Amino acid sequence: MHAITIPEPGGPEALVWAEVPDPVPGEGEVLVEVAASAVNRADLLQRQGFYDPPPGSSPYPGLECSGRIVALGPSVSGWSVGDEVCALLAGGGYAEKVAVPVGQLLPVPDGVDLVTAAALPEVTCTVWSNVFMIAHLHPSETLLVHGGSSGIGTMAIQLAKAIGAKVAVTAGSKEKLAQCAELGADVLIDYREQDFLEEVRAATGGAGVDVILDIIGAKYLERNVKVLAVNGRLAIIGLQGGVKGEVNLGALLAKRGAITATSLRGRPLGEKAAIVSAVREHVWPLIGAGRVRPVVDRQVPLREAAEGHRVVEGSGHVGKVLLVR
Amino acid sequence: MHAITIPEPGGPEALVWAEVPDPVPGEGEVLVEVAASAVNRADLLQRQGFYDPPPGSSPYPGLECSGRIVALGPSVSGWSVGDEVCALLAGGGYAEKVAVPVGQLLPVPDGVDLVTAAALPEVTCTVWSNVFMIAHLHPSETLLVHGGSSGIGTMAIQLAKAIGAKVAVTAGSKEKLAQCAELGADVLIDYREQDFLEEVRAATGGAGVDVILDIIGAKYLERNVKVLAVNGRLAIIGLQGGVKGEVNLGALLAKRGAITATSLRGRPLGEKAAIVSAVREHVWPLIGAGRVRPVVDRQVPLREAAEGHRVVEGSGHVGKVLLVR
Repeated sequence: MHAITIPEPGGPEALVWAEVPDPVPGEGEVLVEVAASAVNRADLLQRQGFYDPPPGSSPYPGLECSGRIVALGPSVSGWSVGDEVCALLAGGGYAEKVAVPVGQLLPVPDGVDLVTAAALPEVTCTVWSNVFMIAHLHPSETLLVHGGSSGIGTMAIQLAKAIGAKVAVTAGSKEKLAQCAELGADVLIDYREQDFLEEVRAATGGAGVDVILDIIGAKYLERNVKVLAVNGRLAIIGLQGGVKGEVNLGALLAKRGAITATSLRGRPLGEKAAIVSAVREHVWPLIGAGRVRPVVDRQVPLREAAEGHRVVEGSGHVGKVLLVR
Repeated sequence: MHAITIPEPGGPEALVWAEVPDPVPGEGEVLVEVAASAVNRADLLQRQGFYDPPPGSSPYPGLECSGRIVALGPSVSGWSVGDEVCALLAGGGYAEKVAVPVGQLLPVPDGVDLVTAAALPEVTCTVWSNVFMIAHLHPSETLLVHGGSSGIGTMAIQLAKAIGAKVAVTAGSKEKLAQCAELGADVLIDYREQDFLEEVRAATGGAGVDVILDIIGAKYLERNVKVLAVNGRLAIIGLQGGVKGEVNLGALLAKRGAITATSLRGRPLGEKAAIVSAVREHVWPLIGAGRVRPVVDRQVPLREAAEGHRVVEGSGHVGKVLLVR
C-alpha cells in the first residue's frame, strides 16, 4: 500500500507519499481500507519530530479515518468485511489501509457520507470525554470554548447546546465567530481585540463559567482560573500557548476549582474503548437526528497531505480539514 | 454564654474568653451545648485576620464541635433535645453554645466518648470529600498524604488503609512517622531529610501515586505533579507552602492528571449536608467497628484556646488538639 511517511522531521514538505508494507490486523483488530483521514494539530507536532507515536502503533501520522473493513483479525466479532466505519487511531490514518482495534470503531452515522465521517472520531471523542465524562457539564451550566471555530470547537459548541447549556467561544476573526454563532454559540469573543476574562464576566454577571475547554495551556492559565465560576472545571486538551504556567492555588481553592489535562492518543485500549462506546451511545443519535453535524473546512487529496498541514498551520480554516484518497 | 472572641487579630493572645449573646437556632438549625471543639489551621488564620468567617456565620472561631442538643429551631425533624452529637461548623465552635444546621450534625459514633467526638467532623469530612468523593481513591491504588501525622493525615491514612489502598506519608520527624506507621502507613518519608519525589518513585517502582492529599500548595506543586502516576489526582486542601506556583501542564497532560483545590468552610449548606451524609454512611461504620479511630494529641481547656493554638503552630503534635469545656 501507500502511506504518508516522515523520512526526516520538518515542515509540510517532510510528508512523503511512499510505498510501504500493508498492515496486518492483530488479535481484536480489523483492517480498514481508508476512504479519508483528517488533519489534527498533533499530526503537525509528529511531523516536526515532537510527538512520537505511542509504542506499538503505526509510524505514519493520522489519528482518525473513515473507510471499509476489508479483513478481520483473530477474535473479532460484531463487525464484518464490507462494513462502513470511522475510527479513532493511535496513528496510521494517512495511509491506504490501517489496522484498528475494534474498540475504536464506530459505524458511519445516519445521514453522513463515508468521506465526511472521517471528521468525527477525534472531535467527538475529545469533546465527549473532556466536557462530559470528566467535567460533567450540566444543562444549567456555561461552557467556554477556546478556539471555537476549530474542529474540536465546532463540535463542543454543538454538543453543549444540544444538552441545553450556554456556550461562550473565543476565536480570531469576525468570520470565525459568525460560524460559531451559526452553530449556536451564545457569547462571541474575538481574542485578537477583546479580553476574554472581561467579556465572560460581563456576559455572566460576574459569575464566570462552569467548564472551560482549553487548547492554549500556559498563556491562558491565569485568566482561565480567574474566569472559572465556583465549582468550575478547566479541561486542558492542548498547549498551543506554552507548557509552563503560573497558577494561583488560592484562587483555585476559593472556587473549589479543578484543572485537568488529557490527551486521547496515549490512553490504553480499554479507556479508548470506553470513550468510543460512550460517544456511540450519546453523540451518534444526535448526529443521526441532524442536531449535531460534522463541520468540514475542505477536502485535500491524501497524497497532498502537506497542503492540508499548511492550511491548519495557517489557522484560516473552520472545522476539519479532510485528507481524501 | 461565653465564647472565645478575637477583639483584634494577632498572636494566640488575641483569643479572649468573653461573655457574648447566646446564639438563636434558625430555621432548620439546632442549638448545641458544646462539650468540646478542636483546633484547625484555619482557626489560626482567622485569629491572624486572614480568613474571615463566611457571611452569616458565627464570628467566633471553631469549625467543629461535640455536645448535646439543648433546643430545636423551626422545621427540625429527626433530632431531639438531649441527643449527643458532633458537628461540622462554619464557625462558632469555640463557645459554650452554637447553632448548627441539621445537615451538619452527626451522631456520636459507637465507642467514642462525647469529648473525643469533637476530633471527627473536620477530618472525616475533609478526607472523605477529597480522597473519595472527588479523587475516587480505589483499593488498588496508592495515596500520598502530606503531613501524615496531622489530624487530617491520621484520618486519611486510616480510611485509605480501611479500603485496602497503599499509603505513603510525609512528616517532619521519626517519631511522627512511627505514629503514621502504627496507623497503617506503608511508605514513610521524613521531609526534613528526604526528597519525597525520589522516595515515592523508589517505593512505587517509578510509577508514582494515584492520589495526593496535599496541605502545602505552591512549594510542592511541581514535585506533586511529577510524582503523580498516569491518571493521578492531586487534591489540594491547604496552602501552607504558598499560593502561587508554577505548573508544567505538559507533564500534567502526559499523565492525564487532575489538580483540584477545595475547602469545606465556604461550601453551601446543601454540599456540606451531602458530605456529612456520605461520611455518616461510609466512615461512621468503620469508626463504630473500631477499624478507624480519632487520633487526639491532647486536650486543652476551651478558655485557654491560646495554648491550643501555640501547640498547633509549633507543629509538635500528632492528630487533633481538642478544646474542652
